[in-house]
Amino acid sequence: MLISQKPVNVALLGCGTVGGGVIRLLLANAAKLATRVGAPIVVRKVLVRDIVKDRVPECDRSWLTTNPEDVLSDPEIDVIVEVMGGETPAYDYIRRAIDAKKGVVTANKMLLAGRAHELVRRAVDCGIDLAFEASVGGGIPIIRLLREALASDSVESLYGIVNGTSNYILTRMREDGLGFGQALAEAQAKGYAEADPTLDIDGHDAAHKMSVLAMLAFGVKVDHRKIPTEGIRAIEPIDHRFADRFDFVIKHLAIGKDQANRIELRVHPTLVPKRSVLANVSGVLNAIYLEGRALGPCLISGRGAGDMPTAVSVVADIVDVARSLRAGAAGLSTRGISLDERPLVPLGEIETRYYLRFTGQDRPGVLSRIAGALGEHGVSIEQMVQDGRSLAPSEPVPIVMITHKARESGIVAAIATISASDYVTAKTRVLRIEEV
Amino acid sequence: MLISQKPVNVALLGCGTVGGGVIRLLLANAAKLATRVGAPIVVRKVLVRDIVKDRVPECDRSWLTTNPEDVLSDPEIDVIVEVMGGETPAYDYIRRAIDAKKGVVTANKMLLAGRAHELVRRAVDCGIDLAFEASVGGGIPIIRLLREALASDSVESLYGIVNGTSNYILTRMREDGLGFGQALAEAQAKGYAEADPTLDIDGHDAAHKMSVLAMLAFGVKVDHRKIPTEGIRAIEPIDHRFADRFDFVIKHLAIGKDQANRIELRVHPTLVPKRSVLANVSGVLNAIYLEGRALGPCLISGRGAGDMPTAVSVVADIVDVARSLRAGAAGLSTRGISLDERPLVPLGEIETRYYLRFTGQDRPGVLSRIAGALGEHGVSIEQMVQDGRSLAPSEPVPIVMITHKARESGIVAAIATISASDYVTAKTRVLRIEEV
Repeated sequence: MLISQKPVNVALLGCGTVGGGVIRLLLANAAKLATRVGAPIVVRKVLVRDIVKDRVPECDRSWLTTNPEDVLSDPEIDVIVEVMGGETPAYDYIRRAIDAKKGVVTANKMLLAGRAHELVRRAVDCGIDLAFEASVGGGIPIIRLLREALASDSVESLYGIVNGTSNYILTRMREDGLGFGQALAEAQAKGYAEADPTLDIDGHDAAHKMSVLAMLAFGVKVDHRKIPTEGIRAIEPIDHRFADRFDFVIKHLAIGKDQANRIELRVHPTLVPKRSVLANVSGVLNAIYLEGRALGPCLISGRGAGDMPTAVSVVADIVDVARSLRAGAAGLSTRGISLDERPLVPLGEIETRYYLRFTGQDRPGVLSRIAGALGEHGVSIEQMVQDGRSLAPSEPVPIVMITHKARESGIVAAIATISASDYVTAKTRVLRIEEV
Repeated sequence: MLISQKPVNVALLGCGTVGGGVIRLLLANAAKLATRVGAPIVVRKVLVRDIVKDRVPECDRSWLTTNPEDVLSDPEIDVIVEVMGGETPAYDYIRRAIDAKKGVVTANKMLLAGRAHELVRRAVDCGIDLAFEASVGGGIPIIRLLREALASDSVESLYGIVNGTSNYILTRMREDGLGFGQALAEAQAKGYAEADPTLDIDGHDAAHKMSVLAMLAFGVKVDHRKIPTEGIRAIEPIDHRFADRFDFVIKHLAIGKDQANRIELRVHPTLVPKRSVLANVSGVLNAIYLEGRALGPCLISGRGAGDMPTAVSVVADIVDVARSLRAGAAGLSTRGISLDERPLVPLGEIETRYYLRFTGQDRPGVLSRIAGALGEHGVSIEQMVQDGRSLAPSEPVPIVMITHKARESGIVAAIATISASDYVTAKTRVLRIEEV
């Protein structure tokens, strides 16, 4: 019987809510997991900061230690599970574990965004597996999908709703007419947004995840700071209302497209058609939609955060790493990751449709001047709506246009001309449209 | 280097469009696949009926044979890939391959629906892997998701759009107002429906897939003929219009719910809310939505059929089986499948909301008599709409009701009473509603 193989010894770095969930799942499913691995998975050590703090009842207190050496220098430990978060000292611990040829599972997206490439390279050099399913999309097995189901395929394009906080705020604004500040305050009250929500609502968290996804989907090494990134702070309720009138929904998307020698990556609020499968991905849910060259379209959606969904992903990784280790095939999964260098497409060169909301004086000729400036820069208008004739004549009115496909540089130049004029009285809202 | 391991020798049974796609993908991605497996995957033999027929250019004609013995009795073949379809002789070939301890990959859903249990048991006994990702949901990696990502979780409920033909017909009826016959004829013209569409539109194909999904999601052995099954033949354009008025969409769903000692399985057209993630899964796309106890909600959607998507799933399986074989861990994946016996919940005992469309005489008192009959059987009405006052008074009118949650046996009894009356002039349409 394969089950009689010697156990796979696991140590956790950190034992917060995700770590506690991992311990729970490992113990509750021990027999099932042993069948899958061909050997029992046994928790041996858990590195914590506070030894007296309460833990989940499944956590045996004899596992706890505050000394990282107890874990990292123990030759009996086969797999290290990093669920402590933060860049320091997590990076050093993972690095040491790799060097000691222990399998590594991590859920640390921020660390991976900055240092996935060096950690992957090091893991390949050392012939061990570095698994990180929980780093993107929480409980959604997107990494596994990209790695395994697409072993024989390549990704043409990918569109992700990968930040639950932003998706929650946009959903509340759209469905219940809340203002941005109000929706954010509610998200904070519910624990969906941090006290300092910058990383989430300004799109940086999504850019971190995009860099990890780009590595797996397109085999490229990307610095997340170079991905053009916009957050949702500037979206107003009026934008949701106009999007709705044109049969769109505003979603914050991480977008990646394979352009042969270059790669197009960007993170920003986006209008998607109401009939799109992404349109109904609401609240804190995450989703990734991709187009495989052979596979065609594929959508995967679920909880992008949360302790138990994340713990499920971490345990799936532990099973993979443990199985490869016992089968003498450690390092194979990680070795399949490419880290090519490919230039990013500059934002000015992308081509898409645009939603433009001008705030203009309510007098004859304004519309023709806006249309003229757009036309001069090669931007043609597909649909237009001008509202607010019932307001006082001196009040500025919104003029919203949906363009045909245009080049971003043309849009930028046209908006610059229009903004410099006297007939537009406020900043023009520019949102990109994707037919996803 | 692990890549220097001896190759994994593969033979195909059948070389139609899916088989051709498999050969294409294996050859085009040879290096990438070898990295993942730790050994090259090499096609050695291809069993065909017609040796002179044209094949994909990647198919080396020296591989072709019409003699099954050349493949099944060749000790050098490690993995058999069955893409010939049909029950006979596919079952015998697979059985022989298992007995000869070759890994087996099959895309044959009809065969699996009837005989998955015996084949899985035999594979476990022989210590080899039987992989069948392509048998449900074509290119959608639902089997992999259920097996791997849920290694530490259990499924509470599952809702699948698993028949692309039915989904295409319902989509065309809903979006473009086509009648059932018209939509079916169009699906046939486009190659989305067979000349004899019975299996698809009467729900049997979905019931086949449900039995395979139930095995993986709930660990139960189910005879697909015992799953309560209804197709889409009786749905009329008027039902789509009324569903729309109540903010629902009609989808043909395979539904599974874990009820502790029993299992609830059923296949039928279903009203789902417009805001549901399943509502926007249109045309020939398939989708599976599940609720994991730890994972929470998860949706996966994509092409449920088609040569290349199916070939991608077959190749992903070949990689898994080949890797386990070379790693000396053959049979582990298959061993994880449970085949418990659990009784099905009788249809009369299920509880859900219902859409009821009566065709009644347009005279006072009809509504109260219908409501009375429903009330007597414990069914209470949530919403109601009665149309058609502008028609001739002698014409019967539709009366549509959405019920609160009710027991199916109550609905059946109430409808029997109502149907026996003189105020209802045609068969009452009963559709179940799911809050998915």
